[in-house]
Amino acid sequence: MTNIQMIEAARDRLAGRVRRTPLLSSSFLDEIAGRRVFVKAECLQHTGSFKFRGAWSAISALLPEVRTRGVIAFSSGNHAQGVALAARLHRIPSVIVMPSDAPRIKIENTRAYGAEVVLYDRSSEDRDAIGARISQERGLTLIRPFDDPMVIAGQGTAGLEIAEQAAEEGLDTADVLVPTGGGGFASGIALALDAKAPGLRVRPCEPEGFDDVARSLAAGRIERNASQSGSICDAIVTPQPGNLTFPILSRLCGPGIAVTDDEALRAMALAFQRLKIVVEPGGAVALAAALFHGDSTAGTVIAVISGGNVDNDVFAEALSLRH
Amino acid sequence: MTNIQMIEAARDRLAGRVRRTPLLSSSFLDEIAGRRVFVKAECLQHTGSFKFRGAWSAISALLPEVRTRGVIAFSSGNHAQGVALAARLHRIPSVIVMPSDAPRIKIENTRAYGAEVVLYDRSSEDRDAIGARISQERGLTLIRPFDDPMVIAGQGTAGLEIAEQAAEEGLDTADVLVPTGGGGFASGIALALDAKAPGLRVRPCEPEGFDDVARSLAAGRIERNASQSGSICDAIVTPQPGNLTFPILSRLCGPGIAVTDDEALRAMALAFQRLKIVVEPGGAVALAAALFHGDSTAGTVIAVISGGNVDNDVFAEALSLRH
Repeated sequence: MTNIQMIEAARDRLAGRVRRTPLLSSSFLDEIAGRRVFVKAECLQHTGSFKFRGAWSAISALLPEVRTRGVIAFSSGNHAQGVALAARLHRIPSVIVMPSDAPRIKIENTRAYGAEVVLYDRSSEDRDAIGARISQERGLTLIRPFDDPMVIAGQGTAGLEIAEQAAEEGLDTADVLVPTGGGGFASGIALALDAKAPGLRVRPCEPEGFDDVARSLAAGRIERNASQSGSICDAIVTPQPGNLTFPILSRLCGPGIAVTDDEALRAMALAFQRLKIVVEPGGAVALAAALFHGDSTAGTVIAVISGGNVDNDVFAEALSLRH
Repeated sequence: MTNIQMIEAARDRLAGRVRRTPLLSSSFLDEIAGRRVFVKAECLQHTGSFKFRGAWSAISALLPEVRTRGVIAFSSGNHAQGVALAARLHRIPSVIVMPSDAPRIKIENTRAYGAEVVLYDRSSEDRDAIGARISQERGLTLIRPFDDPMVIAGQGTAGLEIAEQAAEEGLDTADVLVPTGGGGFASGIALALDAKAPGLRVRPCEPEGFDDVARSLAAGRIERNASQSGSICDAIVTPQPGNLTFPILSRLCGPGIAVTDDEALRAMALAFQRLKIVVEPGGAVALAAALFHGDSTAGTVIAVISGGNVDNDVFAEALSLRH
């Protein structure tokens, strides 16, 4: 189980490799929200998302004789790029198993970070079987996207930064809104804040209709999403909270907040206009909650941007909306 | 004349007010440029450009009994917003004189930062006469956009940060590419680097056809632009280098580099895709030079992004270009 010592050890392993992303703000956003809003811009992290933290943490924690054989991951998105870059910087091989219908740009980026991409047909092939066969043949270690203590510890390093940056701003009480899929980012941040800034509380944020974490927290047991597609925030849609992350979320976080796709797009446009950062739809749900769901929080909020890997046309669409 | 002591004093006055903007990088950009490229993301500064530094520096250096009467500036762009916000944070009045055909969003933003906007008709009214009358009546101090020692000192604080950040990266020799209009930013950075990191040399970057600084440096005397309109990089098009900035540029900087509008738009799209930052066309000319004019520089380069205040439709156009 991840604890603060593991997060601090992950920070030490990440030193000089991870970017300390800035805490931004704009009086224009404060005015919309009717309160102070700080924005932790993790879209500026290497590979464009926080996933690099967890990937580096997990890979750097492997025994050298295990690590040297390489790693494998299943992902078509931010986790793929995080693992690929972390592996390359460790000079070890990585295999990323992706559906053959994944966007070409994501496949190309993952390859460009040095990974071997193995494509499978979603309709006819079993992803897990393919992955199991390849890892067994080559002795690769599986890097899970969230349900892994070392991945959670790596994501928690963002929480250590938030605790420091909040202190620099004189903030000792605030809700910290975090885009949440499987819960690795939210639970890592929550563990760090619980130890370093107990007045800061994590509030998981999700797309409306895919709020498995909010519902699970409310019910006190893991609940699933009815569907896994249909939100523009696809990067943070997962079937259900993780077995490792849910107990942490349950102990330290909540209640959850759900936002609409339209609110996420409006938050992207405002982040463009007022903060000059590029945010992907799923990465914008916490900022959307801060701006448009003021009734769900009280006082100053810190909205975490989880990533900025968005296609040109989706971003242009967000900018073209008239609000 | 601005010197390093004045820049360090400006840094002290700016402490806690200015953002230390990050130095970003991406292996994808390195590959395009064929070398290491670092990017100083001053678009993430308050008001979306470096101009806040110079405005704060100049206003904070005024005697209290002078400052309290207020300040005035002529600008339809980034300088207007920098002065307006710096004045508001000092709790003093500001008047910004803008052409009545300036983009509505810029007028609204400047007002939203608390400034009184005075509009004039470019075809029938004399801007300077209007400004002189208002400042005389109210005892306002004019804050010039670049030809002011305290403004140059403020912009130079970005150079102190670049010197520190280059040292953190182990860089002691590099060209520092800076978007250049009147030369306040480039000359301030050059003075700071000359004192703190003499292996780093400023190379002014401009739009093709509006390269008054490059031509002035080559000729050894101030040369003017034939025209002041016709570039998408309008924010950095000025008639000629300043009387205070040119001697500094001449002593410490050059040669200049000119890039096309198309190159600036491509650099904007790459900054979006690879760095997750929003860059305005004029703010992108140094990155464009780093990426597409490799023959003009040798070794590692630091490209400064000067600002990110760009309209949604211009940004969408940059993203829609197929390269």
